[in-house]
Amino acid sequence: MEKRTHNCGELRKEDAGKEVILNGWVDRIRDLGGIKFILLRDRYGFTQVVFDPEMKDLYQKALTLSPEYVVSVKGKVSKRPKDAVNPQMPTGEIEVHAMSLTILSESETPPIYINIDDEASEELRLKYRYLDLRRPKMQKNLILRHEIAQNIRGYLNSLNFLEIETPVLTKSTPEGARDFLVPSRIKPGKFYALPQSPQLFKQLLMVAGMDRYYQIVKCYRDEDFRADRQPEFTQIDLEMSFVDEEDIFKVTEGMLNKSIKEAIGTELPFEYDRMTYDEAIDTYGSDRPDRRYGMEFHDITEIFLTTNFRVISSAIKSGGVVKAFKATGLAGRFSRKAIDQYVEFAKSQDLGGLIWIKVEDGIKSSILKFCPNEVISTVNHLSAENGDLILMAVGESISTSKALGKIREKIISEELTEAEGIDILWITEFPMFSFNEEENRIEAEHHPFTMPDLEDMSQYKESDPLRIKSKAYDLVINGFEIGSGSVRIHRRDIQNEVFQLIGLSKEEAEAKFGFLLEAFKYGPPPHAGIALGLDRLVAILAGANSIRDVIAFPKTASGSDIMTGAPSEVSQQQLKELKLSLIKGEKEEK
Amino acid sequence: MEKRTHNCGELRKEDAGKEVILNGWVDRIRDLGGIKFILLRDRYGFTQVVFDPEMKDLYQKALTLSPEYVVSVKGKVSKRPKDAVNPQMPTGEIEVHAMSLTILSESETPPIYINIDDEASEELRLKYRYLDLRRPKMQKNLILRHEIAQNIRGYLNSLNFLEIETPVLTKSTPEGARDFLVPSRIKPGKFYALPQSPQLFKQLLMVAGMDRYYQIVKCYRDEDFRADRQPEFTQIDLEMSFVDEEDIFKVTEGMLNKSIKEAIGTELPFEYDRMTYDEAIDTYGSDRPDRRYGMEFHDITEIFLTTNFRVISSAIKSGGVVKAFKATGLAGRFSRKAIDQYVEFAKSQDLGGLIWIKVEDGIKSSILKFCPNEVISTVNHLSAENGDLILMAVGESISTSKALGKIREKIISEELTEAEGIDILWITEFPMFSFNEEENRIEAEHHPFTMPDLEDMSQYKESDPLRIKSKAYDLVINGFEIGSGSVRIHRRDIQNEVFQLIGLSKEEAEAKFGFLLEAFKYGPPPHAGIALGLDRLVAILAGANSIRDVIAFPKTASGSDIMTGAPSEVSQQQLKELKLSLIKGEKEEK
Repeated sequence: MEKRTHNCGELRKEDAGKEVILNGWVDRIRDLGGIKFILLRDRYGFTQVVFDPEMKDLYQKALTLSPEYVVSVKGKVSKRPKDAVNPQMPTGEIEVHAMSLTILSESETPPIYINIDDEASEELRLKYRYLDLRRPKMQKNLILRHEIAQNIRGYLNSLNFLEIETPVLTKSTPEGARDFLVPSRIKPGKFYALPQSPQLFKQLLMVAGMDRYYQIVKCYRDEDFRADRQPEFTQIDLEMSFVDEEDIFKVTEGMLNKSIKEAIGTELPFEYDRMTYDEAIDTYGSDRPDRRYGMEFHDITEIFLTTNFRVISSAIKSGGVVKAFKATGLAGRFSRKAIDQYVEFAKSQDLGGLIWIKVEDGIKSSILKFCPNEVISTVNHLSAENGDLILMAVGESISTSKALGKIREKIISEELTEAEGIDILWITEFPMFSFNEEENRIEAEHHPFTMPDLEDMSQYKESDPLRIKSKAYDLVINGFEIGSGSVRIHRRDIQNEVFQLIGLSKEEAEAKFGFLLEAFKYGPPPHAGIALGLDRLVAILAGANSIRDVIAFPKTASGSDIMTGAPSEVSQQQLKELKLSLIKGEKEEK
Repeated sequence: MEKRTHNCGELRKEDAGKEVILNGWVDRIRDLGGIKFILLRDRYGFTQVVFDPEMKDLYQKALTLSPEYVVSVKGKVSKRPKDAVNPQMPTGEIEVHAMSLTILSESETPPIYINIDDEASEELRLKYRYLDLRRPKMQKNLILRHEIAQNIRGYLNSLNFLEIETPVLTKSTPEGARDFLVPSRIKPGKFYALPQSPQLFKQLLMVAGMDRYYQIVKCYRDEDFRADRQPEFTQIDLEMSFVDEEDIFKVTEGMLNKSIKEAIGTELPFEYDRMTYDEAIDTYGSDRPDRRYGMEFHDITEIFLTTNFRVISSAIKSGGVVKAFKATGLAGRFSRKAIDQYVEFAKSQDLGGLIWIKVEDGIKSSILKFCPNEVISTVNHLSAENGDLILMAVGESISTSKALGKIREKIISEELTEAEGIDILWITEFPMFSFNEEENRIEAEHHPFTMPDLEDMSQYKESDPLRIKSKAYDLVINGFEIGSGSVRIHRRDIQNEVFQLIGLSKEEAEAKFGFLLEAFKYGPPPHAGIALGLDRLVAILAGANSIRDVIAFPKTASGSDIMTGAPSEVSQQQLKELKLSLIKGEKEEK
């Protein structure tokens, strides 16, 4: 093989006259007046190679080329004639006049297009991932991912963080999502679990005095994969000692701002906005609002305090509120039928009903005939103009806000085009606990290692634990929860109280987390941390629709790797060694 | 909490007069004439803090401190009196006179010493890993590991390598070591496997045109853990397109030389020595020789060509050789009893016998009476001097060399102290195949994706496949195989031939590696790569006895995490969801 002297993206007019060797893929073949033009491609770019029919043997060989052949070409760099310069291509001022050609590898016609952005079906793309990844757009995504990751490392290294690897074969401590299990052969009947996060290990590293830890690390959740999730995903995981949430905010902001600026040039705010959880629910009905779409909620209870309209007045009397938001310019999209669908959706969100007001050739509303004055006041209060739509609901404040939040999100995803720019903010003061209706028990909203607000804790521990706030925070970008973290508990007594409140008996707590409680006996430092989802972060920065587009070898929604055929059946011998048997009659569900 | 203004390793005499806050662990407490001296520790170092008995309340509080308490101390930096300067400590010219003290966290008496290098039992160290890791020596190891990894990244990034993550939930393709399996819940009866290496994925990334890939990545092998192995270990994994082995050598040498120099200052040779596999077996009886101990083998068959000693002459007549090596200065250690043990060991290595010559007050030898002249010639040929020992054996060349190689290794590990310095070399031209006696079949010596020597292949494919050499290479450091790589097959026809030679039927090859064969249809580039063991590399550089000392949370020889109790039993509910049952009566083996 003749090794390349240059890659396919680097020759410029200054190189004219040089003899070079290029290696790469045949991207396109053109024939112009008997001359063959080959566009040669590699990760770095494209270079045009010219085969002159006067060099007969060479030309004959060039005739055998097809797209995706891999070749080594020796040739001379020439400036292109003026009218042939291609300003779109970094190498567009030159071409290489071939002197010799070696075919390194042939190719059948690929099942998907490499050089047209018309995408094949997701299934074909995953099956022939090695071809899908040849597409410049996909290569750009993986390069961006690489750069973001390396920039993040560089930033954290400069702040004395240590990247420390934590185990992948860990202990199963079911809490939150379902664990992937790994049967032990040496200890039959026992299992490792793949980590859902390195949470406990990073806390133990703080107890170990490592001071500042990070890791860009795979985590695993055996969830029912919906909505663009992956069973294995990558976190930027960090933890610091002797700090509070302000330090975590500062490091995270610095890390993202620097690494994103270096990778794509985008400047993020020096400090990100902050919003408490309560404020976010109140204003957007969501703890991960995408503020680029506006549609803030207004509490307009006051307008309806004196209304005669029974449905509303009785709701207010029993403590309810009236909340409304304005969808600018959307009145036209909301036909009677469309509104009916939203009303149905509202009911599925446990809203009694959805009230609408359209400002469109006057004012139309589902409640116009019951309380025309209040409708007009609402339109004025929200400064609604011709073409605007107002949606409203009545009821208990939090549940009404959350339901309206779902309606707002439905409008964003179904009625609006993707907004420009990056909206980034911290959501703070999350509740410590939430109520799991299904299991009829209190559970940790973030995780049970989160430091509760200690005043709340002593005040509401017995009477109303759901009122206890925590030192947990999320980082939200464009409506996605990109990061989640907290100040951690570093006191055994508080940790035990939290375990108790989520219904873990002393014995269970000991069996699952005894090593953590034990570690807390020996001088644990105060510490806090955060984990950010790298896949989603890069997807947002790349403008990709799915995190699959920024993962080299992703899995399908059902957790399959279509290319390799994983998961697959294994031999009886393998199962026997693990002392496992399959429960019969329960083969793969169709 | 009062946040630190400085860490415990950074104050110098220039800081005298400053008011500072330090956070850290109480390492030691001394009382000198009523004054309390506290040595405060963190990852960055130690600082002495002084509590003056005249500040009564503060002093009383200081009296409650015990080792491993976590504190925040505010105080004033003072130069130490001349006679109190400690030149061993970077902060030894100053001390901090405490003005206030906050106890952030208390500690019971730790079960292992933090500040004495007298090591606790391995079991205690693993159980209380978070305390073991507080020891400065262990912190230094993890910092070195971090630095090596980051330096390697920096070097590869500068050469246009992309770090690309490959899947952890992959397909089981039993070949080589045993896979760890992960049952799929969504597809009951099917399993993922944890990767033994990202081999196929990195080759597919080359097919995908990614050109230069690397990853510092966990790999998994369910072996019977012996000798300082871990079920999960970390590889520096890289692959390049359009290259041959020379490029891999160059990148690896540059990467190691630069990252090791930056981390610990040690300079390695610009180019590493190379030795073919045959030469290594011939000279050291091993494909991973540690040349620091000398003891090269000599073929002294010629000396014995005319001997009357039947045992030797008959062996030579049937094609055997006589091989000998000299253990300088070891004659004294080899008593009759010690020699007997080595003779026994030789027999266990299928050697007919082990011949010895001692130069010690004249010449002694097990064969002196049978062939005194040849013994003397041997002594002269090997330039043996008083105090030296010569060990020899007779037989078929390769097996005799390998057996002598085991004896040489036994002498190194049992009779000699650890040599200084770093011996690093490439072993090249490995055989393509080896014979698996147990399964009575030919298998791949490296792996079946290694490019065979194509001339050998066409010459010996039918007649003697074991003679076929390959384009595989190992990197050996101080007798450890640190790296292993090869030029890969990128042609479907050759790949199929190799599969056939290792006894994989067309159907099996298709079922296991069909996706690779399919990928080779579409213009795969020539490519080559290597994987290096990060754990062992860092252990050698750190001078650690075991790779466990450079892994934050290692497992025991039986794959247990003593601290967390992994692997552990899981709930019936978890097994039920996976449609698995345990084969009864086969609980953990004692």
